[in-house]
Amino acid sequence: MIPGLASALDYGSVAVFALTGALVASRSQLDIVGFVFIACLTAVGGGTLRDVILDRPPLWIADPVLLAVAAGAAILVFFTAHLLESRYRTLEWLDACALAVAVPAGVAAAVEAGQSGPVVLVMGMITGCMGGLLRDVVCNEVPLVLKQGELYVTCAFAGALAAVLGGWAGVPQGAALILCSLVTLILRTGSLTLGWRLPVYRPRPPQQPKR
Amino acid sequence: MIPGLASALDYGSVAVFALTGALVASRSQLDIVGFVFIACLTAVGGGTLRDVILDRPPLWIADPVLLAVAAGAAILVFFTAHLLESRYRTLEWLDACALAVAVPAGVAAAVEAGQSGPVVLVMGMITGCMGGLLRDVVCNEVPLVLKQGELYVTCAFAGALAAVLGGWAGVPQGAALILCSLVTLILRTGSLTLGWRLPVYRPRPPQQPKR
Amino acid sequence: MIPGLASALDYGSVAVFALTGALVASRSQLDIVGFVFIACLTAVGGGTLRDVILDRPPLWIADPVLLAVAAGAAILVFFTAHLLESRYRTLEWLDACALAVAVPAGVAAAVEAGQSGPVVLVMGMITGCMGGLLRDVVCNEVPLVLKQGELYVTCAFAGALAAVLGGWAGVPQGAALILCSLVTLILRTGSLTLGWRLPVYRPRPPQQPKR
Repeated sequence: MIPGLASALDYGSVAVFALTGALVASRSQLDIVGFVFIACLTAVGGGTLRDVILDRPPLWIADPVLLAVAAGAAILVFFTAHLLESRYRTLEWLDACALAVAVPAGVAAAVEAGQSGPVVLVMGMITGCMGGLLRDVVCNEVPLVLKQGELYVTCAFAGALAAVLGGWAGVPQGAALILCSLVTLILRTGSLTLGWRLPVYRPRPPQQPKR
Repeated sequence: MIPGLASALDYGSVAVFALTGALVASRSQLDIVGFVFIACLTAVGGGTLRDVILDRPPLWIADPVLLAVAAGAAILVFFTAHLLESRYRTLEWLDACALAVAVPAGVAAAVEAGQSGPVVLVMGMITGCMGGLLRDVVCNEVPLVLKQGELYVTCAFAGALAAVLGGWAGVPQGAALILCSLVTLILRTGSLTLGWRLPVYRPRPPQQPKR
Repeated sequence: MIPGLASALDYGSVAVFALTGALVASRSQLDIVGFVFIACLTAVGGGTLRDVILDRPPLWIADPVLLAVAAGAAILVFFTAHLLESRYRTLEWLDACALAVAVPAGVAAAVEAGQSGPVVLVMGMITGCMGGLLRDVVCNEVPLVLKQGELYVTCAFAGALAAVLGGWAGVPQGAALILCSLVTLILRTGSLTLGWRLPVYRPRPPQQPKR
């Protein structure tokens, strides 16, 4: 276990997820405190759930500087988002980067807590996906998690699985976490740029209306 | 306290709630990983909240096999849901069955944790209702919990109340849990088939528009 | 630390938030059990999250009478809401009062738990805002937290900040909590009656459509 690695990953994931939260806040035209609120919710939501489930103090209680990082990111977006060509496109790419840092952050935290493989896998997915899901549910956007024809949960699953399998195969932890991050990012990038997807469920024709 | 009873109820509730989660995922036309994600969220959501509040490890950390059960149910639905006559009707009935297992599961867990009557009551309701509520909020369906003119929370309340009163009256725990399950199921069945309902709130005419 | 003060604030916040929850339930035309359910969710939602994060038993487990208070408030609203001139206007004002009690309740609980300034600040905001946010997300209303051109999170933030700064300046705790409550209420009242607001984010013209 490399000392400080789990904590460094938490920092990266908080900063980038906060940017995505602030971008969603900009789409809802909130004021600056609203930006900070949504940014913090997104940035620490997944990690807080992870830590509550692991029965340890949430990351931002253990280190309140994380809240300042998230707030700083939100303020940056408030004053610069109008410079972006497409806020939605930026949001998607930042979210992909955040996912690729948050999944290994969750994996590292669960390994540090001495959890078994399946729990490590789920903790990677929770840390990666839940902050963004909270953000989208609260702001009434279609959750990225649920967008048809895109890989999202799949990327988190594959990344976390790579880390778990790597750990079982004796790969050093740092390398396993880099592998986790790369698998997540490459799959998500492939989905965003090349349209990689899994087959989706299709009902029988004539399509049944959603009642 | 019958050994293993609380755990057996958790298994049943996870399996059936996972089926309902996967059916909702089919209505959103997700891919197979999306099915598994929504199924797991639905299946362990209520129990996780219950366990976090009771300050014990969530059911799926104590026994990760539950996650495999939920995933298996999701995969089954992915490949067979197109055979169903009406996915929505199936969803309603499976959800009724899941409720009738999850409420006693919550009651049993709270009794095991030595909680008082009112807390046992609420834990039965949380375990029964929260998984489905999470499922519906995330997938942007009208929560079954809130559907006008149907008994839902009422069934969970009455079932959990029956178990608590039974426990106070000295009924053996196994019998109290069966009573709990039957009360829940009968009320919900009556609501779905015979239209049993409580009077709903009606504003004064002319009806005030929802602003 | 004045004994019983944190607990008294919890009582007040639970009672008033329960009224707001029941009013939202009336807008969804639920039955009486639905009123009690939404009222309890709103009333103890923020405090439960606070207590779970602080790793202590949720307020309503420590004192189940709180549930009876919330249920009583819900039943009161069920039978009297039709007498109101405007349920929405009443909801806004009750919510403002609830916020002005819940923020100091959160601050008091975090101080009692020996937390640092930034954590006390966030706990005030969580206890103040999360119950109402849960209520609005579950009932599919536009969250008050997110309404454009209104101060809401800002009021909770300013109130909690006033309490923290007061504490650092050596103000006695009772006075700091009254200050917290007053700052929250005055800002919210100013926003509701005089239109006080912070500038909101505006994208460049031509306005980009929300995709």
